Amino acid sequence: MKTFRVELLPDNIILSVPGGTNLLKAIQESGMSIESPCGGHGTCGKCTVKLVSGTVLEPSAYQLNQELKELGYILACQVHVKDDLTLEIPEFARLTKHKVLLGDEQSEEQKKVYARYPLDPLAKRLYLEIQKPGLENQISDLDRVKAHLLKQHQIEKVDITLECLRKLSDCLRQEDWQITVTLIYIEGTYHMTDVVAGHLLEPVYAVAVDVGTTTVVTTLVDLKSGTVIDSVGTYNKQAKYGSDVISRIIYCDEHPEGLAELQQAIISTINELLEELVVKNKLTKDDILLMSVAGNTIMMHLLMQMKAAYLRLEPYIPGAVQFPTFRALELGLNIGKEAPIVIVPAVSSYVGGDITAGVLATGIIESEQLTLLIDIGTNGELVLGNNEWMVTCSCSAGPAFEGSGISCGMRAMNGAIEKVTIDAETLSITYGVIGNTKPLGICGSGIICLISELKERGIIDRSGQMDLKAKSTRIRIGNEGREYVIAYADECEGQKDIAITESDIKNLLRAKAAIFAGIRTMLAKVEMDVEDIDRFYIAGGFGNSINIKEAIKLGLLSDISLDKYKYVGNTSVQGAISVLLSIEALEKVYHIGESMTYLELSVGNAFMDEFIAALFIPHTHLELFKSINNESFN
Amino acid sequence: MKTFRVELLPDNIILSVPGGTNLLKAIQESGMSIESPCGGHGTCGKCTVKLVSGTVLEPSAYQLNQELKELGYILACQVHVKDDLTLEIPEFARLTKHKVLLGDEQSEEQKKVYARYPLDPLAKRLYLEIQKPGLENQISDLDRVKAHLLKQHQIEKVDITLECLRKLSDCLRQEDWQITVTLIYIEGTYHMTDVVAGHLLEPVYAVAVDVGTTTVVTTLVDLKSGTVIDSVGTYNKQAKYGSDVISRIIYCDEHPEGLAELQQAIISTINELLEELVVKNKLTKDDILLMSVAGNTIMMHLLMQMKAAYLRLEPYIPGAVQFPTFRALELGLNIGKEAPIVIVPAVSSYVGGDITAGVLATGIIESEQLTLLIDIGTNGELVLGNNEWMVTCSCSAGPAFEGSGISCGMRAMNGAIEKVTIDAETLSITYGVIGNTKPLGICGSGIICLISELKERGIIDRSGQMDLKAKSTRIRIGNEGREYVIAYADECEGQKDIAITESDIKNLLRAKAAIFAGIRTMLAKVEMDVEDIDRFYIAGGFGNSINIKEAIKLGLLSDISLDKYKYVGNTSVQGAISVLLSIEALEKVYHIGESMTYLELSVGNAFMDEFIAALFIPHTHLELFKSINNESFN
Repeated sequence: MKTFRVELLPDNIILSVPGGTNLLKAIQESGMSIESPCGGHGTCGKCTVKLVSGTVLEPSAYQLNQELKELGYILACQVHVKDDLTLEIPEFARLTKHKVLLGDEQSEEQKKVYARYPLDPLAKRLYLEIQKPGLENQISDLDRVKAHLLKQHQIEKVDITLECLRKLSDCLRQEDWQITVTLIYIEGTYHMTDVVAGHLLEPVYAVAVDVGTTTVVTTLVDLKSGTVIDSVGTYNKQAKYGSDVISRIIYCDEHPEGLAELQQAIISTINELLEELVVKNKLTKDDILLMSVAGNTIMMHLLMQMKAAYLRLEPYIPGAVQFPTFRALELGLNIGKEAPIVIVPAVSSYVGGDITAGVLATGIIESEQLTLLIDIGTNGELVLGNNEWMVTCSCSAGPAFEGSGISCGMRAMNGAIEKVTIDAETLSITYGVIGNTKPLGICGSGIICLISELKERGIIDRSGQMDLKAKSTRIRIGNEGREYVIAYADECEGQKDIAITESDIKNLLRAKAAIFAGIRTMLAKVEMDVEDIDRFYIAGGFGNSINIKEAIKLGLLSDISLDKYKYVGNTSVQGAISVLLSIEALEKVYHIGESMTYLELSVGNAFMDEFIAALFIPHTHLELFKSINNESFN
Repeated sequence: MKTFRVELLPDNIILSVPGGTNLLKAIQESGMSIESPCGGHGTCGKCTVKLVSGTVLEPSAYQLNQELKELGYILACQVHVKDDLTLEIPEFARLTKHKVLLGDEQSEEQKKVYARYPLDPLAKRLYLEIQKPGLENQISDLDRVKAHLLKQHQIEKVDITLECLRKLSDCLRQEDWQITVTLIYIEGTYHMTDVVAGHLLEPVYAVAVDVGTTTVVTTLVDLKSGTVIDSVGTYNKQAKYGSDVISRIIYCDEHPEGLAELQQAIISTINELLEELVVKNKLTKDDILLMSVAGNTIMMHLLMQMKAAYLRLEPYIPGAVQFPTFRALELGLNIGKEAPIVIVPAVSSYVGGDITAGVLATGIIESEQLTLLIDIGTNGELVLGNNEWMVTCSCSAGPAFEGSGISCGMRAMNGAIEKVTIDAETLSITYGVIGNTKPLGICGSGIICLISELKERGIIDRSGQMDLKAKSTRIRIGNEGREYVIAYADECEGQKDIAITESDIKNLLRAKAAIFAGIRTMLAKVEMDVEDIDRFYIAGGFGNSINIKEAIKLGLLSDISLDKYKYVGNTSVQGAISVLLSIEALEKVYHIGESMTYLELSVGNAFMDEFIAALFIPHTHLELFKSINNESFN
C-alpha cells in the first residue's frame, strides 16, 4: 500500500501514513494528544485541524462549522489520508498541560488531614540491633530477626523476598548483628524487601496517584517524615478515546485492542508523571517503594485492563470494588518492579475509590456531624452520613462542568475563562483567564459564573432560553441557533469567537439538575431535610475558584447557610496520600468502602422527577432558594 | 588459547576444550555426570577415566591404584588438557540411574499414611453456581464469587490473580453464572488462579519433591482424588560437587559462582524429573499447579541459593528454617511460573524438612506411644517423642551407608551388592545385586550385611581389624593395607576386584557409632531408657532391604524387641505428599517444626564418650546387646 508523508505543524512532526488511514488515528499514533471527546464519532467537532496542503478523502458532508471549513479546517476523525499532507494542529485542538488541582504545598489544613490518622506508614525502614546467637540459642537468622521485630516493634506477620533472604545471613554478620531492614505492609503482612548491614536510614518514598477521568495527579511522599515532597499532574491520555467514561467503555467494546489501548494510555500517563517526579527529585524509580491509587471504578477497571462493559449495562455490576494488591511490574508501572500497588477500594460501579478516599480524607466517618460530600469531576458523586451511617450515590451529570459537551468548553487549564462578570448597567463583560493568557475557552467554574450572570442580567430566562430582546449586542444567531459571544476572535488565542449556545446552556442545566436531584433524592431516601446537614463539603478537580453563591444561584448547590459550605479540594489525592502514611487509614478506607450503602438512583421515579424539577434556574420550586433574593446574599 | 578435541567413549560425545582446562571440569561441563564425592580434591579416586589416546598434563604423583594406572586409567580431577584426547568413561565412574526409594504403588499402608489427615488439598477446582445480580443486589463480580465460596465452601480468605480477575466478568456471564475456579492455598489465603465458564472439573495435579543429598524423588499426585499417579527419581546432580553436604558448602565457599552452580544443579535435577513426569503422563508443565519440597536444611538453602556457610560453623545457625512460599519462576523450576513452591519447614541446620515430613508421615505427633524415628540417609537424624513432646538431634554419621567413603561403596542402585552371606563352613560368599546384574560395588545394606557376616565368621574382630589367620582366601594385602575381596574382577562389571578394606570397615564403624551414640545421648538427655521406646521407626533412602537383625548385630540399632522395629520407607516423600493433600497436614508440619526441641550433640562430652564406646562390634558394653547371643535371635 502506498504511504504518504504527513507533516504536523507547528511541531514539524513528519509521519509516514498508509493510504486510507483515518487522519485522527494517524495523528494520535504519532503521540500527539488531540481532543476527541466523542471518541472519533464526528459529533463533538473538537479534532479540528487545518489542512495547509494536500487533499484528503472526506465524506460529502460532516458536522463542522462552515466558517472553519472555509478557513481550510477539517475534522480529522472524518477524513482519510490519500495524499501527502501538511497540517496545522491548532492550539484549541490540543490536549495541553492542565491546571490540575494538585495537593498544594502542605498547608496547615492538609497537615491536619494527614494527622487524622497516626503516622504508621505502609513502608518503613527500621534499624535493628539483633541479639547474637550461640549454641544455647540456635534459632535461624530469619526467625531471630522476626522475633526482634515482634518484641521491639510489635510487628507480627513478616514475610521476606527471596532476594532479601539470600542477603540476610551475610548482612547480619557484617556489622555485628546490626542491620537496617525495609518493610512494606501488604494485606496484613509486612514484606521484608531489603536488608543492609549497619545503620542506614534513608528516606522512604512512595507515590500517591489520583486517576481522574480527565486529569491524573501523582504525589511524591516521604513516608518517614510523613511529608509531601512534590506533586505533578497532567491530563489522562485516555481523553483521546473519549472525554467521559462511557465513551471510553464504548471504545473498548468497538475495538478489539481497545481495552489494551486504554490501559496503555493511563499507564503511560502515570509513568510520565513518575518520570517527572523521579527526575525532578533526583531519585531512581527503585527508590519508590510503593504506590497508592485512587480513582473512579471504571478508571480502576481500565488501569487493571479489566472489561468495563458490564458497568454501563443494567444492573451495573463492577468486576471488583476491592482490588488485590498487584505489583508494579504486573501493571507495567515504572517503579521498583515488585513495588505493591495499593488500590483504594470502591463502593460500586459509579462510586469509586476517589470517593472512599474523599470520605477518609474529610473524616466524615470520624464525626457526629451530618456531612454531605459532593465530588464534581467528570461525574458527580454524593456521600451523606456521619460516624454512624453513610449513604452514597452517583448522578450521571456528565462532564459539562469539565467543559465537555459545551461548544466552547474546556478543562480548567491555561487559557480557560474561569470567572465572568457582566456589568449590570452596560452589559459589558469582563472575564478572568487561567494563566492570564488570551482565552481559548471556558471551564466549569467560568460557566457557572457566566450562566448565573446571564440570568441575573436578563439575557437568559429560568429555562436557559436566550432573550433576543435583551439589550446585549453579544446575542446572535449562529449555526447552532442562539448564542452569546463571551470573547470575540480578536481577543482570543484561537481563530474563532468564544460563544456559548443555548444548547450549551441546556447541557449545563441538565448537569446541575442531575446533581441537585441527586442530593434531593438521597435526602428523601433517608428521610432527611437539607437543613439537617451540618457540613456541605465540595470536592473535585473542579477548580478552587468555584463561587458557592453563584452555584446556589444557578441551583447547583442547596440554599443553606453559606458557612456550612467548605471547599475541600482534591480529596481523592489526600485520601490516597493518607493510606500511604497510616496503616490505620488504609484499614479505615476498606471499612468505609464496605460500610457505605449505595443508592441506585435509576430504581424508581424519584430521581427523574427531581431532575425535571431542577432543570430551571435555580429550580421549579423557588421556595427551595429563598435566600437568593435577599439583599444580604448578593 | 588453543582448544583441543576431547572425545568421550562410549557415548561419542565430542568436546572442544581450551588447553589447560581441568579434565574433570571439562567432562562435567559436557553434562556427563561422573562420580566426584571428594569434590575434585583427588582423594576419593572415583573420577577414574581411561585415556584411550592423547596425552594429558598430569602431576608427578597422585593417588590412583597402580593397576588401574597401568591399564591407562587417569584421575580426571588431577589432570589438565594439553592435547586432543579420546577417553573412555567407565561404568563405575558414572552416576547412573539410581534404585531410588520411590513412593511405590500406593499400598494399603501408604493409603493409611495419607488418610491420617483429611483430604483437603492445597489446590482445588470448584464448580460454582453463582446467584445472579440485580439492581437490588449490585455487589461486584469478585465479591459475589467470594460470598459464594464463603457460604457454600466455608472458604474465607480469597485472593485473585490479575489474569484471572481480567477473565472473571466474562466467564460469569458466558454460562449463566456457572463457573469453575481453581484455588490454591498459600499461607492462609486461597489464591484464585484460574476461572473458566461452566462445569469443567479436570484433575488437579501437583508434585511432591524429596530433595536428598544423594537422591531426588518427584511424585505426581492427583489432588482431587488424593492418589499418587507416578513417581520418578534420580541422583542429585550436586553429587559432582561433593558427596556430602559439608563438601558442597566448602565448594560454594571456594568458588565465586559455586552457590549458583549448586543451585543450578539441583534445579536442573528437579526439572529433568518434572519433564519425565510430564511427558510420561501426557501433561504440560502448566498442569502442575503447585509443588511441595522436603529436604535437609542445607539442601533447602542451596535450592534457594542461600549461603549455607554459616550452617557448618559454630554455632551452626541456618539462614531460615521456615521458608516463604516462593513461585516456581523465582526459583527456576519448570512448572507453571506462578505455581507456589511449598517448602516443608526444618528445625535446625541439621534437622531438616525431610525429618519434619517424616514425623508428619509417621504420625508420631498423633500418638501416645513413645516413638524413635531414625532417618539414615547421607546423614543420620533422630526424633524421639509422642503427642506430648519431641526432641530431635543429628549425628554426623557421614555418607558411609550410602556407599561414600568406602572404596568399593556405591549407592543403592543397579549393580550394587545389597545382601551378602558367607557360608559358615566353606567361608564361600554369595551376594545379591540390585537389578540382578554383575556387581559394580556395594551399597549400605550390603555393607551392614557384609560386616556382620565377616564378624560372625571370625574374619574381622570387634574393632573391625582383619584376622590374616582366618581361613578365608579372600583376605589379602592391597595398596591400602588389608582388604577382603567380595567379588573378583571377572565376576564384575568394572575392571577391578570389589574389595572392602580395613579402613572402609573402620569408616563404617564410625558411622554406626555416631548413630548409636546419638540414640544413647538423646535418651540420656531426656532421662529415658531404650526399653521405654514403644516403636522404633527406620526411614530413609537406605534401601528396603535393611536387615534389622544384622543391623543390631553390627551395633547400629538397639537391642530391643524386633517387633518394635518398623521400616517406614521414604517418609520425606510421604510427608511432602501429605502436605499437598491436606491443609491440616500442612499446618501440622509447621507445628511439628516449631514444637520439636533440638538437642545440639556437640555441647558437652556425652556424645563423644558414647561414640567412642560404640566403635566396636556391636559395642564396648556387650550387656547392651544381650539378645544377639541367643539362639532364637539368629
